[in-house]
Amino acid sequence: MSHIQVRTDLALEAKESISQEEEQLRGVRVDEYRLDSEGALVTRVSVESKNAAKAMGKPMGIYVTIEAPTLVEADEDYHRDISICLAEELRKLLPQEKELNVLVIGLGNRMVTADALGPQAVDNLCITRHIVKEYGVAAYNCSRMNVLSALEPGVMAKTGMETAEIVRGVVEETHPDALIVIDALAARSVKRLNRTIQITNTGIQPGSGVGNHRNALTRESLGVPVVAIGIPTVVDAATIVSDALEKALADEEFGETAKLFGSSSRIFPELNNMYMTGKDVDEIIKRISFTISEGINIAMEQSME
Amino acid sequence: MSHIQVRTDLALEAKESISQEEEQLRGVRVDEYRLDSEGALVTRVSVESKNAAKAMGKPMGIYVTIEAPTLVEADEDYHRDISICLAEELRKLLPQEKELNVLVIGLGNRMVTADALGPQAVDNLCITRHIVKEYGVAAYNCSRMNVLSALEPGVMAKTGMETAEIVRGVVEETHPDALIVIDALAARSVKRLNRTIQITNTGIQPGSGVGNHRNALTRESLGVPVVAIGIPTVVDAATIVSDALEKALADEEFGETAKLFGSSSRIFPELNNMYMTGKDVDEIIKRISFTISEGINIAMEQSME
Amino acid sequence: MSHIQVRTDLALEAKESISQEEEQLRGVRVDEYRLDSEGALVTRVSVESKNAAKAMGKPMGIYVTIEAPTLVEADEDYHRDISICLAEELRKLLPQEKELNVLVIGLGNRMVTADALGPQAVDNLCITRHIVKEYGVAAYNCSRMNVLSALEPGVMAKTGMETAEIVRGVVEETHPDALIVIDALAARSVKRLNRTIQITNTGIQPGSGVGNHRNALTRESLGVPVVAIGIPTVVDAATIVSDALEKALADEEFGETAKLFGSSSRIFPELNNMYMTGKDVDEIIKRISFTISEGINIAMEQSME
Amino acid sequence: MSHIQVRTDLALEAKESISQEEEQLRGVRVDEYRLDSEGALVTRVSVESKNAAKAMGKPMGIYVTIEAPTLVEADEDYHRDISICLAEELRKLLPQEKELNVLVIGLGNRMVTADALGPQAVDNLCITRHIVKEYGVAAYNCSRMNVLSALEPGVMAKTGMETAEIVRGVVEETHPDALIVIDALAARSVKRLNRTIQITNTGIQPGSGVGNHRNALTRESLGVPVVAIGIPTVVDAATIVSDALEKALADEEFGETAKLFGSSSRIFPELNNMYMTGKDVDEIIKRISFTISEGINIAMEQSME
Repeated sequence: MSHIQVRTDLALEAKESISQEEEQLRGVRVDEYRLDSEGALVTRVSVESKNAAKAMGKPMGIYVTIEAPTLVEADEDYHRDISICLAEELRKLLPQEKELNVLVIGLGNRMVTADALGPQAVDNLCITRHIVKEYGVAAYNCSRMNVLSALEPGVMAKTGMETAEIVRGVVEETHPDALIVIDALAARSVKRLNRTIQITNTGIQPGSGVGNHRNALTRESLGVPVVAIGIPTVVDAATIVSDALEKALADEEFGETAKLFGSSSRIFPELNNMYMTGKDVDEIIKRISFTISEGINIAMEQSME
Repeated sequence: MSHIQVRTDLALEAKESISQEEEQLRGVRVDEYRLDSEGALVTRVSVESKNAAKAMGKPMGIYVTIEAPTLVEADEDYHRDISICLAEELRKLLPQEKELNVLVIGLGNRMVTADALGPQAVDNLCITRHIVKEYGVAAYNCSRMNVLSALEPGVMAKTGMETAEIVRGVVEETHPDALIVIDALAARSVKRLNRTIQITNTGIQPGSGVGNHRNALTRESLGVPVVAIGIPTVVDAATIVSDALEKALADEEFGETAKLFGSSSRIFPELNNMYMTGKDVDEIIKRISFTISEGINIAMEQSME
Repeated sequence: MSHIQVRTDLALEAKESISQEEEQLRGVRVDEYRLDSEGALVTRVSVESKNAAKAMGKPMGIYVTIEAPTLVEADEDYHRDISICLAEELRKLLPQEKELNVLVIGLGNRMVTADALGPQAVDNLCITRHIVKEYGVAAYNCSRMNVLSALEPGVMAKTGMETAEIVRGVVEETHPDALIVIDALAARSVKRLNRTIQITNTGIQPGSGVGNHRNALTRESLGVPVVAIGIPTVVDAATIVSDALEKALADEEFGETAKLFGSSSRIFPELNNMYMTGKDVDEIIKRISFTISEGINIAMEQSME
Repeated sequence: MSHIQVRTDLALEAKESISQEEEQLRGVRVDEYRLDSEGALVTRVSVESKNAAKAMGKPMGIYVTIEAPTLVEADEDYHRDISICLAEELRKLLPQEKELNVLVIGLGNRMVTADALGPQAVDNLCITRHIVKEYGVAAYNCSRMNVLSALEPGVMAKTGMETAEIVRGVVEETHPDALIVIDALAARSVKRLNRTIQITNTGIQPGSGVGNHRNALTRESLGVPVVAIGIPTVVDAATIVSDALEKALADEEFGETAKLFGSSSRIFPELNNMYMTGKDVDEIIKRISFTISEGINIAMEQSME
């Protein structure tokens, strides 16, 4: 079944199609721990060789996944423990400097609810760069601190520009030490929807995710470290149909049929550019974007002194 | 295949599963004409007997469908010819009074893009009731005119109230002559998405669409004529999977399999409360809501003198 | 100078123009306490006689004012202590029943930032009425609980209906035990802007605030207790000009001039329908609406058991 | 009275304080014509010498003002004649190339209604750059055409970056031939609010508007021609108070007093960062932003062939 190519932005899902033996051979290292308060599982997948990268279909680097089934639920303090966990994982992937100048990029389209995660997360950040630039760190009563700036570049259909063009220009002009890029992902499984946070130091790879593509948001293309935070908020329509077919035919003698329909986007071209999401997507995006932005805010506060 | 129950809010789609012979026998009358400027097909389905209603799974009444393939496209004057056509069909379904006091209800959730059609359409209406109430029709330099009011009742998850409770209360307090209710529908086919306007004098029926349900928005439940305008902006996820299975298995010997999976919401419970929509849904909803509101504005202007 | 009539929605500001002696004579009782954690001052003004009401230009009833200079500042937990204080004061003004069915009305126009306080506060409420109605209080694992519903009625320019018409209809249909109405107010002083919460059991009085006006949202007009929560988010433009004139001329010999300009809306008719607000109004409204909605959520939770 | 410095972003208002004789002497040339259909007056002020620039407090360049009293009114075709007029004036100020690659910058804060003009105007543009870049001009069935891209940079409080930093980076990366910058302005007079469009080839000057400031959006600072389109949507609070004082005291013997209060921001520091706007600002911004974006769309279409 692993030969059926379906689109997934989650390294964890990519890893699941590789057996454990293969992992060891190929330079994929996996650690995990539990976040008891939220019943969350944190998995760190290190893809450490080119072979491993090829097998995973993901670039070499570190992929941390916080699987938090509670994330979709309303919560009085917006799942603060998950924000703290996210902050700790972020700090490990960001440069280990005493003072960081970080630019956060909120990808996506504010006007499409399921795609508004990045823009909404950016709305809740504690932006400090302009204050520090004008008044110095003394404005915050400290001798050194991280500073934060943020950009919502918009989507190509509305700007006429590649996101990478906009980000590259702003990076060259404002010289951040690192980027954090927030994006809504497509998951393979409905069950992972809005329950998983992926943090990776490999940035964002358009399309196949291989090479130093000009439209990528990566260290290679931008010249600064890029940590990407992604949450699956939609499922690709063609993927759902593939999954449904697989599941439906799993116990039957229709294996060959399933393979035929595997790449359903070819068979159902009308499903291209379609995505699937839940009816309460507005509330969920609002809450999760807050959890994410608090994670970043906490990560940036840590070295203030 | 017609025995597989899939959810559709479109009478046209319901009709398609009935053969022409059946139509005549059962009291379904169908007229159609073309709107040349937009290449649109206008179909009027009259369900004139209880038998016909039963066969269609739709209440007795008139269902006008404007199928306009251009509706998804950007257009300088927002498809004004379709607005005019909508206005004419609306006038035929509204009470034939010289002066009408019409309340427009914009159903849906403004915060979920695909469900924001009703609220956005209401935003563009020429609301006149409060002006006429305070200053008389002389404020508009005419001796008589239709007056318009509008309400965006919100969705039950946010109000804790049935839409019908809110609308009933407001109707009893403000005594409109008729209601126009605007709603985003679920279509069965991706091909109909955002290309079809359905206008019906049967109002809005929750669930099975039979009887004088307290949660319906109908003449029976509210005491005033209710004309509903619906546009399919989403496809039910379970429906897509059913359709994909049907299509995939159509030429094969898997008819029985297809039937098994027919009601995919039972087999794939995780698809309940999921819907599918296109990636450019924000632009499409913005444009179509404008076409709809202009249709209502034109319909209301007609009897000013 | 106290004779110059300027528009204020705040009882505290009305009270300030009455001397302490007058207060005692006339049946105005004032209590106050400090909320140390936020440096807030809570003042409870009871207007207990018709004379007092006349002197204050406010109906008989209780007016609690929370003056919290920190309210405009960003805060990690959204000023939770103020939410708790608001919850306690709300409970004192609501009916003392074991189980309350409360309808919250978010007044204002979501599309105008300074007027979006009510709609935004309603967005963050824990709405329970529909769940309890369908599944009983057992859905929340308790034997009795308060239930909450909410409505955003919109503004007359967009609905063509008086807010009171809409609310009256919904109240008659859904029979709440009490209403909480949230509104953005106009303050007299820029210094009070976004720093003061007023809670009153006299509801909302349009215009002069006297009598049982059909457009009021009061116990008299709606038949159920109405607690209004108001925050000054704008200053009336004519008021600002009056204040500026007063201040400018205070030390001069131009007292008579000041009186002439006192009711500046007559002299400067172009200032009618104009209001003044701060440039960061979006962030402030977002934060304060959250503090308000949490106050209501906490008040409603208290009697769950 | 002309010595009282009040803040105005409108060249027309600056010009009004210079007598006609002075104009001729100092190199200010003024032409005007009427746009009959809308009763609009179009004024072209050319500031042609350094002396003139100094007297006006505005840089050398061309300032076209369309004064259209109808602009605040609802209109079926969104004041298309004004859009056409704007398009013609824009073309005169843009480079006279056969094919232009224009980047539109929508300044302002989408979340603050009165400041959302730029972002909302950008929403309605026909963005073509990405299509032409991928498929060539053949995608639009023409042999050459102008291409359009757009950016909503956000405000410094939310990005931590100067708008000029963001724009400079994007310009250097995407190499447009010219910029069009859309901004909401502050007017001196309530009467001009939302009724005037200013188009200038001098770009946007922060603060005093003199010199090659790094935070300016001008040809000097960005290296490409910059045409700015501005509409006054707010009045500075301090300005209103000054105006009110002037008006109030005009017929009196209080000239000296008026002068004292002239720069009211010094006397009323609490008015800084406050602005005044009308209660129906949401509808007005929505309509005017559409008129502006159509003007740009028409200007860009003209050379398609």
